[in-house]
Amino acid sequence: MTEKLGILALGHGSKLPYNKDVVTGVAELIGKQNSDVVVRTGFMNMNNPTMQEGLDSFAGTGVSTIVAVPIFLAHGVHTTEDIPQILGVSRESRKTTVQIDGNDVTLVYSEPLGADELVARLAFKRAQEAIKE
Amino acid sequence: MTEKLGILALGHGSKLPYNKDVVTGVAELIGKQNSDVVVRTGFMNMNNPTMQEGLDSFAGTGVSTIVAVPIFLAHGVHTTEDIPQILGVSRESRKTTVQIDGNDVTLVYSEPLGADELVARLAFKRAQEAIKE
Repeated sequence: MTEKLGILALGHGSKLPYNKDVVTGVAELIGKQNSDVVVRTGFMNMNNPTMQEGLDSFAGTGVSTIVAVPIFLAHGVHTTEDIPQILGVSRESRKTTVQIDGNDVTLVYSEPLGADELVARLAFKRAQEAIKE
Repeated sequence: MTEKLGILALGHGSKLPYNKDVVTGVAELIGKQNSDVVVRTGFMNMNNPTMQEGLDSFAGTGVSTIVAVPIFLAHGVHTTEDIPQILGVSRESRKTTVQIDGNDVTLVYSEPLGADELVARLAFKRAQEAIKE
C-alpha cells in the first residue's frame, strides 16, 4: 500500500472566532506547503468539526497514517489529558489504530508547537509590525 | 537619544509548568536571535513575573521602546480585553507611554502569533518528529 499522510490540526475551540480562524488558517497553510498531505481540522470544544468529525473526514482520502498535531503553544491539561483520552492514546504510547473506510490507519499524536526558533522569529516579526503601524 | 528596543513576552500563565517554560524559552530565543534587544517576560496570571513586574524589570536597561508581544496563538478575551486593560492600551490605540527610570518609554502592544507560515512549518515539523519516534 502506498503511504499517504494525513494531518489533523487540533484546535482548542472558542466562543470567539479567532481560535478557529487561526487553526483553520494554519491547516490551509500546511496543505499549501505540502501538497501531498491531506489536512483536516478538529476542535476540542465549542467549534466544529469536532475531533471525531475531523477524523471521520479522512474517509475517501486513502491516508495510511494520520498525525494529530495540537495547534497549541504549550502542553497543559488539554494536551496531556483531554485530547489523548478522546484520541485513545497516552503520553507513554502516542500511537493507536483507527478505522477509516474499513481500513486500519495509524493515528499518531504529536507534541504541541513548543519553544521553537520559528515561534521566536514570528514573535519578533509581530513586534516589528507593531512598531511600524 | 539612541533607540533601544525592549520586548516583553506576555504569557498566559498556568498551574502546570509548561506554559511558563515555553514563554520563557521563546523569550530566550528572541534574545539570542536579536542580541541588541532587551527581552523580558510577564505573565497574565498564575506565574511570575507578572506583567507589571516584567515592565518594571526594564529599569536600568535604557530601552526607549517596549513592545509587549502576546505569546498566544490567537486573539481571545485575554488578548482583546484583559491584557490591554492591564497595559493601558486598546485595540484602537495600541501605544501608550510608561515611566522607566523616570523616563518616558513608548509601550506598544502587538498582535499575537496568528496563522502564519512559520506556525504551519513548525506544526508539520512536529508531525514528522512524531512519526519518526
